[in-house]
Amino acid sequence: MLERLRYPEGSAAATRNAWPLMEALYPICRSITGNGVRRTLDLLQQEVPLQRTEVPTGTKVFDWDVPNEWHIRDAHVADAKGRRVVDFREHNLHVVNYSVPVRRSMSLEELKPHLYSLPDKPDWIPYRTSYYREHWGFCLRHRDLEQLGPGPYEVVIDSALVPGSLTYAECTIPGSTDGEAIVYTHTCHPSLANDNVSGIAVATILARELRAEKPRLTWRFIFGPGTIGSLAWLSRNEKRLKAIRTGLTIGLLGDPGALTYKRSRCGNRVTDRAARYALPRVSPQARLVDFEPYGYDERQFCSPGFDLPVGRLTRSPNGQYPEYHTSADNLELLKPECLAESLRALAEMIAVLDANRTLLNLSPRGEPRLGKRGLYGSVGGTAPGEFEHALLWALSFSDGEHDLLAIAERSGVDFHLLARAAGALEEAGLARALDDAAPAVRQGARA
Amino acid sequence: MLERLRYPEGSAAATRNAWPLMEALYPICRSITGNGVRRTLDLLQQEVPLQRTEVPTGTKVFDWDVPNEWHIRDAHVADAKGRRVVDFREHNLHVVNYSVPVRRSMSLEELKPHLYSLPDKPDWIPYRTSYYREHWGFCLRHRDLEQLGPGPYEVVIDSALVPGSLTYAECTIPGSTDGEAIVYTHTCHPSLANDNVSGIAVATILARELRAEKPRLTWRFIFGPGTIGSLAWLSRNEKRLKAIRTGLTIGLLGDPGALTYKRSRCGNRVTDRAARYALPRVSPQARLVDFEPYGYDERQFCSPGFDLPVGRLTRSPNGQYPEYHTSADNLELLKPECLAESLRALAEMIAVLDANRTLLNLSPRGEPRLGKRGLYGSVGGTAPGEFEHALLWALSFSDGEHDLLAIAERSGVDFHLLARAAGALEEAGLARALDDAAPAVRQGARA
Amino acid sequence: MLERLRYPEGSAAATRNAWPLMEALYPICRSITGNGVRRTLDLLQQEVPLQRTEVPTGTKVFDWDVPNEWHIRDAHVADAKGRRVVDFREHNLHVVNYSVPVRRSMSLEELKPHLYSLPDKPDWIPYRTSYYREHWGFCLRHRDLEQLGPGPYEVVIDSALVPGSLTYAECTIPGSTDGEAIVYTHTCHPSLANDNVSGIAVATILARELRAEKPRLTWRFIFGPGTIGSLAWLSRNEKRLKAIRTGLTIGLLGDPGALTYKRSRCGNRVTDRAARYALPRVSPQARLVDFEPYGYDERQFCSPGFDLPVGRLTRSPNGQYPEYHTSADNLELLKPECLAESLRALAEMIAVLDANRTLLNLSPRGEPRLGKRGLYGSVGGTAPGEFEHALLWALSFSDGEHDLLAIAERSGVDFHLLARAAGALEEAGLARALDDAAPAVRQGARA
Repeated sequence: MLERLRYPEGSAAATRNAWPLMEALYPICRSITGNGVRRTLDLLQQEVPLQRTEVPTGTKVFDWDVPNEWHIRDAHVADAKGRRVVDFREHNLHVVNYSVPVRRSMSLEELKPHLYSLPDKPDWIPYRTSYYREHWGFCLRHRDLEQLGPGPYEVVIDSALVPGSLTYAECTIPGSTDGEAIVYTHTCHPSLANDNVSGIAVATILARELRAEKPRLTWRFIFGPGTIGSLAWLSRNEKRLKAIRTGLTIGLLGDPGALTYKRSRCGNRVTDRAARYALPRVSPQARLVDFEPYGYDERQFCSPGFDLPVGRLTRSPNGQYPEYHTSADNLELLKPECLAESLRALAEMIAVLDANRTLLNLSPRGEPRLGKRGLYGSVGGTAPGEFEHALLWALSFSDGEHDLLAIAERSGVDFHLLARAAGALEEAGLARALDDAAPAVRQGARA
Repeated sequence: MLERLRYPEGSAAATRNAWPLMEALYPICRSITGNGVRRTLDLLQQEVPLQRTEVPTGTKVFDWDVPNEWHIRDAHVADAKGRRVVDFREHNLHVVNYSVPVRRSMSLEELKPHLYSLPDKPDWIPYRTSYYREHWGFCLRHRDLEQLGPGPYEVVIDSALVPGSLTYAECTIPGSTDGEAIVYTHTCHPSLANDNVSGIAVATILARELRAEKPRLTWRFIFGPGTIGSLAWLSRNEKRLKAIRTGLTIGLLGDPGALTYKRSRCGNRVTDRAARYALPRVSPQARLVDFEPYGYDERQFCSPGFDLPVGRLTRSPNGQYPEYHTSADNLELLKPECLAESLRALAEMIAVLDANRTLLNLSPRGEPRLGKRGLYGSVGGTAPGEFEHALLWALSFSDGEHDLLAIAERSGVDFHLLARAAGALEEAGLARALDDAAPAVRQGARA
Repeated sequence: MLERLRYPEGSAAATRNAWPLMEALYPICRSITGNGVRRTLDLLQQEVPLQRTEVPTGTKVFDWDVPNEWHIRDAHVADAKGRRVVDFREHNLHVVNYSVPVRRSMSLEELKPHLYSLPDKPDWIPYRTSYYREHWGFCLRHRDLEQLGPGPYEVVIDSALVPGSLTYAECTIPGSTDGEAIVYTHTCHPSLANDNVSGIAVATILARELRAEKPRLTWRFIFGPGTIGSLAWLSRNEKRLKAIRTGLTIGLLGDPGALTYKRSRCGNRVTDRAARYALPRVSPQARLVDFEPYGYDERQFCSPGFDLPVGRLTRSPNGQYPEYHTSADNLELLKPECLAESLRALAEMIAVLDANRTLLNLSPRGEPRLGKRGLYGSVGGTAPGEFEHALLWALSFSDGEHDLLAIAERSGVDFHLLARAAGALEEAGLARALDDAAPAVRQGARA
């Protein structure tokens, strides 16, 4: 499964092909609501079919409410000569995301509490938001801030906060069993390349490739805003949650940092074990770190009331690379070889997670005779071959308590070889997957 | 809680203030019963209120019976010239504790089976007892033993073993919840400074300080003889045992050895985890050792029929310092800085154990909006602060399976900060402690 | 128990005495059925009483069927001059075990697909079998194979595959409790000394010695063919399986490799813990390795439908010594000191496994008074002795969750000392074994 993406040439080619999409996505001024997200989804829809959901302003989402929709047309600070010293049209990070409208003349002193800059990184514009408190502000290079005279300044934010809706979208690839899997990537950041364009692009590539496969699990790629987006999805999919076998939040996939997998809250769910198995095989530098309750949408999926088996894959985690949440997180930060490696890692994890299952040995008392089923060499006295080893391991530990991943880890047998052996045992009627029920079969059982 | 004792100046001052008490306690000839214990409790009662219990001779205590009370007035061995060559009035270790009366002339040969000395430590008097077998004897310096001529000697032990009672006392500080905690120190050793005066003094200081606090748990400081005393207390408090959340036996707290925590029988109870958390923070030299079924009263509390979460704190453990159970265990062995460190360690453990609780997140589906409750900064884009981290950790793991100690150990967040965050969540109605029930509330629920 | 075999002199003497038996066993042409096995059992029956079972050809044994019985009278390849260039009479490995009859003239080219040799070990004859596929063949030294001219050759295998039965035998030593134990050794290999003669001899010695003891468990030594033999035994003893407390498959016990214990499938059953305790005490070189689903009959006993606590003891494991499954696995490969060490290891494991039990402390609230029962020294103030320590450990952890082995591992107290202490506690009425029920007692309970 996902053979093309799991190997270097295929993942490099997919990365090259994705570059124009990322260049188109980068300039859009996204937020947790509004037309930036919708324009983003329009671009993705050219790659994969998307089902969109609009959640109206004011909808109660657990402890939260969907906020007003934010529209931003223009924002600037102009000096006495009318020269724009801070200009949203130059960079969309210049305005504090979700700023309320303002149109007023004021002195620098009056303006200052609304200005955000980074004294340590004087050439970078910071990224700031104020979603849930009425506020307005500008972000600017510290070097520019220091040049500002006492004023007065014409301050304009031509925004609107009005009832509307929050937008998220899904691309669903149906599987052959009841199990489901989710891949969530956040779509709410404006011109930040690593911290949301890379994740959006990678999720799109994976979804497109997976559509050509026949997965066992139903895979659902979700494109939505951070926090309120995953909460909105969760609130509309509560009945589906019990079917979720695995999930990932992904993002920050193009910077030069090492691959970093963040475990689910429990730390030993199937996603965590798949990461432990797959990632070192893709990159010896890959790191696995424990869950902590801040980061991206894994916070919501792993909250104790849901406790889903959702991990997170990034390269550098949030806050751990210098360009994080600044204008320096731009397309130049993205390295093609890093994006390609991220793709390989995710393709490998998805392939493992999709093929993983818990078999029940249907002939558990003693070993079954593999020879009479054509599964075993017949002249004895020599050691069995690799595939025969895999068959024996699969039979021996298919006691209902070990899934294929556990058997792979314990035996040292390659997971994919073991999965092939498992398939052979299923075909021979010697084992069946415990957690599977093809819809047709179940309907038959019900009828 | 116990702020004063948890810091160097306060614990040093408390140690200084306790010295006169220890000097008054040291000369008393204590035993497992009798007036030595009662005089000891009289002195303590000047510091803290004590509730005394007298358990009559012959009372059945599980597999044991409360023995006759022992009274000792005088004991000596005198030579032909009437010179006392061994004299109880010189040191109360000279008589084997619980010796039956004797008054007889005998040769050295006849006397020898009743003499105990330490050939390796010829200047020290050993400490010996014979509580449950009728016996008499003298302990003396080996150097003195070697000087003894063939006799005859006048041998006198003016003691009595008569029906009476065993005495123990409790100082109880009521808590705001149902949970209880015990601190047991043995009071049955005669003039041995580290091995019982230090524990008696430290328990008294802790009880007095804790009376000025409003603890969550009801703390019960118990002063009683070894083995039969803890058994007697257990037999009279069986209904209370299920409320016991934690406990400690303490003693040997003033010698220069490293702090040594001995785990409960199970090894992973809350007391053990509190020791693992607190002790290295007080002293990097602190050692944690596994339970073994000999030592002090933890033997009884941890016996499999009770299996209480009771650990033990000493400095050098029983039998592991040269002066142990000899006349060299005197007030000079006690180091003020060591006693003060022991106080700090116990104050820290008590503070942690008292504040520890298991919260249930009452808004567990997704993260609750901390911002609207004033618990979170509102301009986004930067990392949350320490207190906000503590709130998130407390919410994320308040799933009913992690107490605050477990969350502190997992997160690396300081326990006391986490406890403050927990309090803020409780106040905001976002969490409640699972193991708490204030008596008033429960009465209301019952009515 | 088994004192004689557990010490060097006794095990050396037993090894010396067993040599004539091994010399008699070695030349016999055994297979999974047939008269070679029966002649083998005739020899063993001179040492220990055996109960034989004949399982008829065609009997269904789980997924298998008992095959036809194999008889082999002669086999050879003769050249044009009638000279036997391959001759079964010279070495019984020359014929592929279970070869069907053949009597035909053919060229070397025609013959070659039926010839097996070892190019890397040109002087050794390999051992090959074809139990379940109709086939015939010869095994020969590669050096001899290279000498063969183009032929023609007279090829004769004077064998028969006819309905009959499979033979296994048991020597049972009844125990005083309900628990059972099995020791299985395979008896199906022809002239291979380490790989079956050593195991057969060692099992016989152990059974003979154990008959002089009064074990707690019923020990059953089973002599049967590999795979189909253990499956046949299992199929005829399914009701007995729930009583099995422990078991071992043994073999390959005389080569110079280190003792190697292979864990049961679960890896932490009592047999595994006994090996971890006992083997390093017998030999610091002993290795403990994880279960894998190939090897000897532990494969069947540990299959998930049975999941018995059966481990395996060998020296070099199957396939891990150069002479394995070749004519070089002859009596010269067996080292007396190695066989003796294997005997010591097994005797120690059997002694530990037989004495192991889970006690219930019948006086669990506090410590019982050992002194009044004569189990404890009575003058206090000094540390208790070794036996008293063992008593205290046994009492403290006899909570129904720790067997004696677990207590020995946790305490560091010698297992056999602990077992003696346990016996003393049982006699004193302070503890009883949880897993024991002497048949008489249970009959009483039923009546």
